[in-house]
Amino acid sequence: MTVESKTASTVSEPEIRRMLDELGQIGREDNGAISRVCFTPEEEEGHALVASWLHELGLEVTRDGFGNTVGVLRGFGGTGRSIAIGSHVDSVPSGGNYDGAVGVIGALEAARAIAGAGVTLEHDLKVVCFTAEEGARFGMPCLGSKAALGLLTEGDAERLTDSQGLTLSSAVEARGGHSALLGPAPWVAGVEVFLELHIEQGRVLEDSGQEIGIVDWIAGNRRLRLGMRGTTDHSGATPMPLRRDALVAAAGLVMDVDRLARRTRGLVGTVGEFAVVPGAMTAVAGSVDMSVDVRSADVMIQEDTILAVEDSAQSRASQQGVSLTVQDISNVAPIMLPAWVRHSLTDVARRLTERPRVMTSGAGHDAAIMARQIPSGMIFLPCRGGVSHSPEEWASPRHIALGTTVMADAVVDLDRLLAENLGES
Amino acid sequence: MTVESKTASTVSEPEIRRMLDELGQIGREDNGAISRVCFTPEEEEGHALVASWLHELGLEVTRDGFGNTVGVLRGFGGTGRSIAIGSHVDSVPSGGNYDGAVGVIGALEAARAIAGAGVTLEHDLKVVCFTAEEGARFGMPCLGSKAALGLLTEGDAERLTDSQGLTLSSAVEARGGHSALLGPAPWVAGVEVFLELHIEQGRVLEDSGQEIGIVDWIAGNRRLRLGMRGTTDHSGATPMPLRRDALVAAAGLVMDVDRLARRTRGLVGTVGEFAVVPGAMTAVAGSVDMSVDVRSADVMIQEDTILAVEDSAQSRASQQGVSLTVQDISNVAPIMLPAWVRHSLTDVARRLTERPRVMTSGAGHDAAIMARQIPSGMIFLPCRGGVSHSPEEWASPRHIALGTTVMADAVVDLDRLLAENLGES
Repeated sequence: MTVESKTASTVSEPEIRRMLDELGQIGREDNGAISRVCFTPEEEEGHALVASWLHELGLEVTRDGFGNTVGVLRGFGGTGRSIAIGSHVDSVPSGGNYDGAVGVIGALEAARAIAGAGVTLEHDLKVVCFTAEEGARFGMPCLGSKAALGLLTEGDAERLTDSQGLTLSSAVEARGGHSALLGPAPWVAGVEVFLELHIEQGRVLEDSGQEIGIVDWIAGNRRLRLGMRGTTDHSGATPMPLRRDALVAAAGLVMDVDRLARRTRGLVGTVGEFAVVPGAMTAVAGSVDMSVDVRSADVMIQEDTILAVEDSAQSRASQQGVSLTVQDISNVAPIMLPAWVRHSLTDVARRLTERPRVMTSGAGHDAAIMARQIPSGMIFLPCRGGVSHSPEEWASPRHIALGTTVMADAVVDLDRLLAENLGES
Repeated sequence: MTVESKTASTVSEPEIRRMLDELGQIGREDNGAISRVCFTPEEEEGHALVASWLHELGLEVTRDGFGNTVGVLRGFGGTGRSIAIGSHVDSVPSGGNYDGAVGVIGALEAARAIAGAGVTLEHDLKVVCFTAEEGARFGMPCLGSKAALGLLTEGDAERLTDSQGLTLSSAVEARGGHSALLGPAPWVAGVEVFLELHIEQGRVLEDSGQEIGIVDWIAGNRRLRLGMRGTTDHSGATPMPLRRDALVAAAGLVMDVDRLARRTRGLVGTVGEFAVVPGAMTAVAGSVDMSVDVRSADVMIQEDTILAVEDSAQSRASQQGVSLTVQDISNVAPIMLPAWVRHSLTDVARRLTERPRVMTSGAGHDAAIMARQIPSGMIFLPCRGGVSHSPEEWASPRHIALGTTVMADAVVDLDRLLAENLGES
């Protein structure tokens, strides 16, 4: 228990507040919203601030060809093996200052606490600030972590464009990066574990009064875009049997998605996009465009559910005599985070809070990408009302400090585990 | 049967085509849509063209203080009593050239046919071109017919505004009319019957292969605007039991409205407006604004149905934990058109087409307003695909000529009936 007290005692809540406030000035809008969209001067300014903090801590700072910023605290082992911790500082347009930022600032503070407590790790500790985690600009999330692992191809970078038609490739070059996106990034070599601290972006912890979540599975997703095409008719002059009402068909599908999702524990199903044309008081709807997002930690259940959604869409469309188009737009398998990393996080968390919750992450994260190649773990904090991607996004500094302490202590614990298991000591 | 052959034979389909083509140049857009919105120069040009045609027929032309154009063909009786026929030439923005226009051109051609056949009526025949039948600009339909009957108050004219904030009162004054809207208009005095020829705006006649509809009831309407307010949440991070999904609640109501309407013969129920916020792939919908439009020829059924809709909305909202606001925006009672006018129209139609259909009008019309004070009748024509308020709006000139012949013959028949029943001959 010496390790625990050494690090935990030195995580500074005021320091966390100070860094959050300073970072929160970058990209700040009049209404308090934060816009640090990837590949903008605001994101760059965020990375520069993080780099300056890394320098202050005495870490060696590098930036990889795609734009991820990495600071290295050298371990005494000289093994070239390392533990990486971090998240991202980019935001959605008009988002908040907690999604991502909390994980970067937590990683900085954990490194400071570990170094400040005089704990010397056998392995290197890498503090990572990923670029371009939010998919809002280029339509694909986690670009920085994908690029670091070599999972982003030159073809992707040419194909992905923002709403202005600028390619990802041009954006990377404009920042002075390599357009060829050669991966994997050198800093990834030797990383044995990756940990990410993040706000939950849901209300599970808040509702149950729990202070820390340890992620077991990161849900995958299956996404469809559907078009229902019926006939726009006069609402007074068209008897019910003559109608081809796209809204009635689409509403039936909304009910089916909700029913399918509710009958399967741990699965969520959402109709989020929903545009009705013409959308006038006295017009039967001729057209609805909608999306379905299904997520589960079980790939079979996820796939079975999306097949059931497609059947239901066909049946609802037929009942109303409307035509149906279905476009498959995403198919990501769920990923289980390794038990040994999760157990370390859970053990540490149990010493610091009464009831840490082992839970599934419904949202995707850089840790879900890293987990494809590197054993990874995630620590969740409650956030107010479960709100994210909004100026209303907020997490308590006390919870951020607690999550940071869990991460710092877990780094020390994993450093020891790695040394034992990998025979480095 | 001499009367019938005299008038029917002289209705000219080419003349109808010529007038439709000429009127269809006014307010014509590149894609073929017609925009002759009320109180615009385009509507004015339409009225001027109608007035010039009335002059050519030798009728006395007047315009009332609100802007309705009226031509009078004097009868020999000198009683001051009259039969009025007509419709409107204004359109919705980007509408078609048949809704309204067919009834004005039909009335002009009926007057020409009657005069040309050498039939002299005992009563005056008034050809009426109403202004501002479409409610698209000021949010209230049938302004011209309401004003003519004295049903539009000065308060209404001050209260009703267009999307630019211009009051109806200012629009009337800008056209040189009376802002005080003194009604009823002088030309209404002595009108014993009003007839209107109109496209059906539905597919009932087209689907059944019938060429003429005679309206028995004009449906009323009950309209609500509803707001469902839930919570916008992350679609991945929010388990189903924690959601307050406004779209699921609203979709349930769409299904209920459809079910309630289908179980009641002759009633229609429509959700037309339907706006979802934020409407994003990965966001549970926080808010839906929607409308419900219920119409029936039976006022009790109409009212019972709207009460059931309100109950259902409350229940759907409660199930999802979303809040509900309901705004009552329209309550118009159905109106039955008098049997003696309908029988005259039906008798005449039976002589001209195999199976005229007695049917309810689900849409409102100037005839529904006139019917509040003056016995009125309506003749429906099939229109292609039931489409109206669209550049695709179309009716066959043969059907328009047939409907015009029904109207012309009915005028002669009603002229005789009125003379007999009212003891004027």
